Amino acid sequence: MAEERERGLFVGRFQPLHEGHRRVIETLGGEVDELLVGVGSAGRSHSVDDPYTGGERVEMVLRTAEATDVAAPVHPVPLRDVDRNAVWVSHVRSLCPEFSVVYSHNPLVVRLFREAGVPVGAFPTYDRERLEGTRIRRRMLDGEPWRDLVPGPVVDVVEAVDGVERLRRVDRDDAADVDRVPGTPDVGDDE
Amino acid sequence: MAEERERGLFVGRFQPLHEGHRRVIETLGGEVDELLVGVGSAGRSHSVDDPYTGGERVEMVLRTAEATDVAAPVHPVPLRDVDRNAVWVSHVRSLCPEFSVVYSHNPLVVRLFREAGVPVGAFPTYDRERLEGTRIRRRMLDGEPWRDLVPGPVVDVVEAVDGVERLRRVDRDDAADVDRVPGTPDVGDDE
Amino acid sequence: MAEERERGLFVGRFQPLHEGHRRVIETLGGEVDELLVGVGSAGRSHSVDDPYTGGERVEMVLRTAEATDVAAPVHPVPLRDVDRNAVWVSHVRSLCPEFSVVYSHNPLVVRLFREAGVPVGAFPTYDRERLEGTRIRRRMLDGEPWRDLVPGPVVDVVEAVDGVERLRRVDRDDAADVDRVPGTPDVGDDE
Amino acid sequence: MAEERERGLFVGRFQPLHEGHRRVIETLGGEVDELLVGVGSAGRSHSVDDPYTGGERVEMVLRTAEATDVAAPVHPVPLRDVDRNAVWVSHVRSLCPEFSVVYSHNPLVVRLFREAGVPVGAFPTYDRERLEGTRIRRRMLDGEPWRDLVPGPVVDVVEAVDGVERLRRVDRDDAADVDRVPGTPDVGDDE
Amino acid sequence: MAEERERGLFVGRFQPLHEGHRRVIETLGGEVDELLVGVGSAGRSHSVDDPYTGGERVEMVLRTAEATDVAAPVHPVPLRDVDRNAVWVSHVRSLCPEFSVVYSHNPLVVRLFREAGVPVGAFPTYDRERLEGTRIRRRMLDGEPWRDLVPGPVVDVVEAVDGVERLRRVDRDDAADVDRVPGTPDVGDDE
Amino acid sequence: MAEERERGLFVGRFQPLHEGHRRVIETLGGEVDELLVGVGSAGRSHSVDDPYTGGERVEMVLRTAEATDVAAPVHPVPLRDVDRNAVWVSHVRSLCPEFSVVYSHNPLVVRLFREAGVPVGAFPTYDRERLEGTRIRRRMLDGEPWRDLVPGPVVDVVEAVDGVERLRRVDRDDAADVDRVPGTPDVGDDE
Repeated sequence: MAEERERGLFVGRFQPLHEGHRRVIETLGGEVDELLVGVGSAGRSHSVDDPYTGGERVEMVLRTAEATDVAAPVHPVPLRDVDRNAVWVSHVRSLCPEFSVVYSHNPLVVRLFREAGVPVGAFPTYDRERLEGTRIRRRMLDGEPWRDLVPGPVVDVVEAVDGVERLRRVDRDDAADVDRVPGTPDVGDDE
Repeated sequence: MAEERERGLFVGRFQPLHEGHRRVIETLGGEVDELLVGVGSAGRSHSVDDPYTGGERVEMVLRTAEATDVAAPVHPVPLRDVDRNAVWVSHVRSLCPEFSVVYSHNPLVVRLFREAGVPVGAFPTYDRERLEGTRIRRRMLDGEPWRDLVPGPVVDVVEAVDGVERLRRVDRDDAADVDRVPGTPDVGDDE
Repeated sequence: MAEERERGLFVGRFQPLHEGHRRVIETLGGEVDELLVGVGSAGRSHSVDDPYTGGERVEMVLRTAEATDVAAPVHPVPLRDVDRNAVWVSHVRSLCPEFSVVYSHNPLVVRLFREAGVPVGAFPTYDRERLEGTRIRRRMLDGEPWRDLVPGPVVDVVEAVDGVERLRRVDRDDAADVDRVPGTPDVGDDE
Repeated sequence: MAEERERGLFVGRFQPLHEGHRRVIETLGGEVDELLVGVGSAGRSHSVDDPYTGGERVEMVLRTAEATDVAAPVHPVPLRDVDRNAVWVSHVRSLCPEFSVVYSHNPLVVRLFREAGVPVGAFPTYDRERLEGTRIRRRMLDGEPWRDLVPGPVVDVVEAVDGVERLRRVDRDDAADVDRVPGTPDVGDDE
Repeated sequence: MAEERERGLFVGRFQPLHEGHRRVIETLGGEVDELLVGVGSAGRSHSVDDPYTGGERVEMVLRTAEATDVAAPVHPVPLRDVDRNAVWVSHVRSLCPEFSVVYSHNPLVVRLFREAGVPVGAFPTYDRERLEGTRIRRRMLDGEPWRDLVPGPVVDVVEAVDGVERLRRVDRDDAADVDRVPGTPDVGDDE
Repeated sequence: MAEERERGLFVGRFQPLHEGHRRVIETLGGEVDELLVGVGSAGRSHSVDDPYTGGERVEMVLRTAEATDVAAPVHPVPLRDVDRNAVWVSHVRSLCPEFSVVYSHNPLVVRLFREAGVPVGAFPTYDRERLEGTRIRRRMLDGEPWRDLVPGPVVDVVEAVDGVERLRRVDRDDAADVDRVPGTPDVGDDE
């Protein structure tokens, strides 16, 4: 029966998915019967903070889980933003199979789920100094080594989409700021 | 390498996932290396045409694929609507890992992907007379047998959310139409 | 202290607010310490089903509550639609002061609040045959008497905005359907 | 000086632009110094009621104005829908150069501009029996002659996008309604 | 008659409502027959700049007006953002009962209403040095006294929702910025 | 025939259109048969970065093209933002007549069109030191001369809308930041 297995939701942006994420997935896969991986801000891409599309990050999760010996099945769920924190939890719940515990080190995610009465589980971080999205993107931009900080399949995904060059392009845009492009995340949504 | 495997996308709404869908998944799983299942209108729920949430339908796909001996891995991807057909294909592409072929019997989906130059694959339908979402929802509403028309795990999901009663509730609303609820799909989004 | 008083939420569209609504407000005002009146589909106006703006309907509630001897304070809250039933309850909750009971005869509203664990209170309807929004709008369109079916202040609001003529205009549009206007509720939002 | 010339706005959907529209443009071009042509529901396409994209219809306007001896310059402005009639006029105004008169036979457009205090100009219709979007699309669907009902450049645009076949495709979808596509205008936007 | 009374609209965000706001409400209540209080950015919450939900702020207005001896009735109206300044005035107008004067010290609000021809009224500020939202939130974050800067009922509302802790949580998130949460106001809406 | 002429799209925000833009339009008009000018972020206005409405900027393009001896017809197309870079190209394509080449010096625009397989054309910039939107707005704010940096018709448009004063108003708002207005572009859209 569907409701009998313990399902956990691990939330992140995975820009890109790095070794720290991989180890968390491996660890959590040993604690639940099924692990959902919420790919946050799934509609964002081609910006300095969010270079990769939701689909590219879904693939990072799938390929990494495959390559890692995770005890439980791992299912990525792309989650586009809704710009209202007060409805964000119900938004996430409506797009995921039912889960009983949430894993995140993001204080706002933790806060929102706690206010909604959803249990938030504890889990370790790994080598946060080195393994952190902002720093890895910075290394990519600066031409420093980054491949050893992410799982092998992530290197494949990044290279398949020419992802370092993409990041450099959009960074140059931000740096110059001469003619801000219509529709970038900096500009916001005019719907 | 990620780009070497043939990946197909099967698009549907799965309200609910029925035996016809299950057989298509089984068939397509024998033709591609990996099968993405796009769960359309993932943001819709609690209406006569779309009773189940995106997450409930993601679960229907996961549990059905698990219970069926599908040759290839099956990954559901919830796809919320964007109300502009002209950008729909790029919306889908941005949320899915790259795919090389699309499967759908919906003429508009076929048309949109063809205009975008994406190959659309052929596949059989199974017993369309009986296995069709509208008819199954009608049977649920009328109190006629429906369980034999959907895979066992779908019965579980529907029952776990009291899904037949939910459907009847929202149908009564539509029938009476006395005091249309704010925010129903019939009303549309006024944002 | 804020949290000590019992607050109820009565949800409707009030197109227009009629005598039946007025009596419900009067009745509920005797049962709670404070009555919130959720003005649904507040962003809709100038259509056959939703002729009056959210603001015009907020005024109908204010003026009617003022003219009626309601035991408890009455506070209207305009609620624009969100076209996702699964997040609607949290949307409403985020825009209203905390309430402990909901009043509605709409089956979907009842269903959504029940699924969210919010108590739904019982209350009588009054002369539903005559007092029903669709019928009152029909009478306005057909030039039949309607003023005795709504509270006096509602007559004032409708007349101040030339509201019967407005309704006839938009109805003619629907009837002819010759050149559907861009952006009508029938067309939906293409953002 | 910019503000000295009289500018008029003619609003339509142009699905497709037909001979009646062309004659109105020709007539109005003799009455104002500059004619804006608002292309309504510009974000809609690939549906039975709205088969052509905003850009395709912008091109119909440009090519038709070019081929017609219009006295004043003609400038198309694509106008995506906003699903709130109460803000529609300010939406249109913010996207168009300032105009002093509006032309439309649509009662709701007329009503909204009048409530906003914008003058609405009179103009003749031409052979409405034959020249009406719904009927022309019907003829396209039924394989009856339609080319003589639209200006020559519109025939070119429709054929360049295989526009009759596109219309038939989406119609078949509506007719069958077997597996409603995610994201069609019929489904609405769930963002 | 509805149109005979002078109604004013006071616009603010009230994050949180402070003593300065309270005195303005008191003052304006002596100048108009009815005072609407527009609660701006009503959809925002759980961020450093906008910690409290629209509903919590509606309650701050209601309770404060109740506790203050305001000469005129005070009615809060939650106003969610529309990200287009050019339609913002008509958005506000469509959600509020008709008003004849606007009160705001925000230069953009003043500008937008003036461009729309709505009179903007003068009113004093009170002790702006101390009574300013940003500073009060800063004091909450820094553990400095803040209760004497807001009306008593606002203290109640903040404490009922554990509002200082909520603010600290989301601030920590901003400070660390390690794993930006999906859907925060900093991220924007990707619809 | 429509498809025979070479059509180019020049993308910019034109806040305001300056001499550098004018020269690019003049140059490109000599290279294509028809020049589309995409007016980006067309829904933005009344902010420091985007002071002028889409319509005001459409008018800048029309009047400047008229006053310049451009070899090819010039057609402005207002393009509102969609806050998803991954669908931006298909959004632009759906609102413009078909074009075969794009002109932009913005690295992200270039990147997005290249990923979509659309040719991006080369063109010179002119005196970028002086001719740059940010600097011209800065001069307007600082009361320094700016009229010689923009075409004469742009001076007319700016003055007709009291555009320097508008810019100063919204800047004061940003500087002070005391009471951020609901719904400014800085705040984002909470729909």
